[in-house]
Amino acid sequence: MKAVVPGSFDPFTLGHLDIVERASRLFDQVVVAVGLNSAKDYLFPLEERVELVRASCRQLAAVTVEPMPGLLVDFCLAHDVGTIVKGARLGRDFEVELGMAQMNASLTAVETVILPTRPSWSFVSSSLVRQIARGQRDISPYVPAAVVDHLQRSRHVHSD
Amino acid sequence: MKAVVPGSFDPFTLGHLDIVERASRLFDQVVVAVGLNSAKDYLFPLEERVELVRASCRQLAAVTVEPMPGLLVDFCLAHDVGTIVKGARLGRDFEVELGMAQMNASLTAVETVILPTRPSWSFVSSSLVRQIARGQRDISPYVPAAVVDHLQRSRHVHSD
Amino acid sequence: MKAVVPGSFDPFTLGHLDIVERASRLFDQVVVAVGLNSAKDYLFPLEERVELVRASCRQLAAVTVEPMPGLLVDFCLAHDVGTIVKGARLGRDFEVELGMAQMNASLTAVETVILPTRPSWSFVSSSLVRQIARGQRDISPYVPAAVVDHLQRSRHVHSD
Amino acid sequence: MKAVVPGSFDPFTLGHLDIVERASRLFDQVVVAVGLNSAKDYLFPLEERVELVRASCRQLAAVTVEPMPGLLVDFCLAHDVGTIVKGARLGRDFEVELGMAQMNASLTAVETVILPTRPSWSFVSSSLVRQIARGQRDISPYVPAAVVDHLQRSRHVHSD
Amino acid sequence: MKAVVPGSFDPFTLGHLDIVERASRLFDQVVVAVGLNSAKDYLFPLEERVELVRASCRQLAAVTVEPMPGLLVDFCLAHDVGTIVKGARLGRDFEVELGMAQMNASLTAVETVILPTRPSWSFVSSSLVRQIARGQRDISPYVPAAVVDHLQRSRHVHSD
Amino acid sequence: MKAVVPGSFDPFTLGHLDIVERASRLFDQVVVAVGLNSAKDYLFPLEERVELVRASCRQLAAVTVEPMPGLLVDFCLAHDVGTIVKGARLGRDFEVELGMAQMNASLTAVETVILPTRPSWSFVSSSLVRQIARGQRDISPYVPAAVVDHLQRSRHVHSD
Repeated sequence: MKAVVPGSFDPFTLGHLDIVERASRLFDQVVVAVGLNSAKDYLFPLEERVELVRASCRQLAAVTVEPMPGLLVDFCLAHDVGTIVKGARLGRDFEVELGMAQMNASLTAVETVILPTRPSWSFVSSSLVRQIARGQRDISPYVPAAVVDHLQRSRHVHSD
Repeated sequence: MKAVVPGSFDPFTLGHLDIVERASRLFDQVVVAVGLNSAKDYLFPLEERVELVRASCRQLAAVTVEPMPGLLVDFCLAHDVGTIVKGARLGRDFEVELGMAQMNASLTAVETVILPTRPSWSFVSSSLVRQIARGQRDISPYVPAAVVDHLQRSRHVHSD
Repeated sequence: MKAVVPGSFDPFTLGHLDIVERASRLFDQVVVAVGLNSAKDYLFPLEERVELVRASCRQLAAVTVEPMPGLLVDFCLAHDVGTIVKGARLGRDFEVELGMAQMNASLTAVETVILPTRPSWSFVSSSLVRQIARGQRDISPYVPAAVVDHLQRSRHVHSD
Repeated sequence: MKAVVPGSFDPFTLGHLDIVERASRLFDQVVVAVGLNSAKDYLFPLEERVELVRASCRQLAAVTVEPMPGLLVDFCLAHDVGTIVKGARLGRDFEVELGMAQMNASLTAVETVILPTRPSWSFVSSSLVRQIARGQRDISPYVPAAVVDHLQRSRHVHSD
Repeated sequence: MKAVVPGSFDPFTLGHLDIVERASRLFDQVVVAVGLNSAKDYLFPLEERVELVRASCRQLAAVTVEPMPGLLVDFCLAHDVGTIVKGARLGRDFEVELGMAQMNASLTAVETVILPTRPSWSFVSSSLVRQIARGQRDISPYVPAAVVDHLQRSRHVHSD
Repeated sequence: MKAVVPGSFDPFTLGHLDIVERASRLFDQVVVAVGLNSAKDYLFPLEERVELVRASCRQLAAVTVEPMPGLLVDFCLAHDVGTIVKGARLGRDFEVELGMAQMNASLTAVETVILPTRPSWSFVSSSLVRQIARGQRDISPYVPAAVVDHLQRSRHVHSD
């Protein structure tokens, strides 16, 4: 069976990686779908985010990474995926996922499974990591090495 | 892969049945684990609940039903199950499941996946069904036929 | 139009009274339905609770008070009431009411309206008032005078 | 009695229509107040939204539809309305409504009643419908016919 | 300044110990108040719980442990304490604490401060630990050594 | 001991003032840190907000007010502060604070304490006050006099 782990992953965190790893133990194949990012304060453009998720998931044999320019349900149809996997950290996260899961099931009968976040990543969100990166603090405890490296390189470029 | 759907199922509802059906499409084998019921106002004893879940899941080929007298993690070890499947209807449900999922992962590294309840069963809980049954109202819109039949038979016996 | 304000009211608080008053401005007639109390630590039996709610609502012309021995939907049918009015103080309260509202609508198409608690009564619950009463502290800031008086009288009787 | 159902209704959904219908059974007159929309990704301007709500509520005799350029409390005073009616789907929705209800009561002593969403519309929100519309998917299961028609016409115009 | 950390502590967990330690860094003196336990499935009686908390907090110089037979506000008055310290793990926990904090402030103007639980203890609750203990599983990752020892000794006694 | 009360305070409300006052009774020194404001609909720029908080806290001897251009954890290091104090009104507020508290503890081992909002300020938020100000309604019940005065003066300037 095939599942999709969707997100904007701006940036991809160790919490996201944990969800992808756990999904890859539950399903034969996992596609990570990197979507458009509506946040005002975005860190990386879509192509860079796709590359960073790919670099971070290289060790995971059954995992592929693709950009998702449109709706998740259309991505599911195009990639022949029947199940969406999402992480949730809190009641509030779950309520957001609940509405999207029910809507996606209504649109194309796709299934959604929620994986409860591990305690150690419960406070790690992309938006907090973006703030920490902007504040010039070390983000390496929260994101894969590829993201740390890319952030440092893009700073060098910008400061040249 | 094998998964367990645990619960006290007093009584088993159409919402529970929906979760078991969805789990059976995600996993090769599903064991429904019928636990002890700590509610003061219990409706059916353990053996009857096991029988009613069995009767209700008869159509589902890959589903078996077993009593669970002890801890869920021990049931998982004894039945060689690596994944727990639970339904959740609301933020509040999810918060309860989150703590149990993290504790179970801490005890034996078992995975938990949460399936968001379908809208049509979002308000159906065993405790509300017990109240309705006690109030002598028809519970057939909320539970499998086997449960309706059993409740009627047990009333005849009691009123004899 | 006619509405019911249901509860176990053990004891009736100033927060409950506020909901009944507000309901009586929205509806032509309001019936307060005093239900059975499943709490282990109950304070007053059903008949006394009915009397205390009646004494507390005496000033409210369009309000009557009745015991409710069975299901709320049957009370609604018996009293020809089409709308249930409940107060809610927090997200958690609302989630409980949401499930009951949807179940009651499913059983008899009765409507439920939720009144958000006023800030000044947001922390006043019957269960906290019972604890305070047991701890021999003054409950008069939280309940109508009739409840204070009755509690004092019942203590005299018990200490005789 | 007169009530207002406020919202930005971008677009008006079948969930909104259900709340307006239920409000019109509870109150003698209902005014739907169409407010300014602060969402970045807005679908229709104010005048079009007013027209679409009007077209969608045509069958409801006691319902009128008006634009609301300012504060809801001022709309209430201008239209002599004493009660605000809002739908709420989840604990999170309720918490938002609770704060606004208490603030509006503080500003002008206006009452707020919350109607719990029906299960079938629990996952339908304007923001999800906007995403679906942008993704070129059929929104007709979620919105009144007038909204579907208007969206198709505005697309023809834009694609000419 | 002096603070109280109240609870039923049945049993005292490493999550509780973390809250007491953090409280002892914020306040000059900390009193741990061990209350009556209303849970049906209690593990240890009051005197044993007081002793176990004392043994577990022995290293913390500014911490004392006392039984609390009555209301928390009366304990605060008797021990001249102006601040209550509680841990909270989730939105649901906080809502419960919020109501109690506002009630206690209303009764005696005592202050309440909430410490957010550390991620590593976020899933550790006394009720889950009681279940694990009953299931004959090792509770040592979740409770101080004194509790593990006491549980083993009391089992020997019972099995003699 | 020294604590920081951080916020964007746009505008500073009587709810914020209450938290600062309560913090100043718990800690020897309190620094109010006025951060950048990411809201689209901002009311006052940073320097004006710092001045308004200063004017509002003038009576509180142990309270100072400083701008915070960067991360809160860096502000804590620069000002030698070990504890963050935040108010929280609802479960949803708490969940946001929980994540930030755990992240800040992870970055620099700073402690966070949450003060539950008093009932009377539970519905007062800066965003609702901004809406009310924009709607030309009186905000004096919700903010300190300095904020009311400043808003009136800045309107005169703009209307000249």
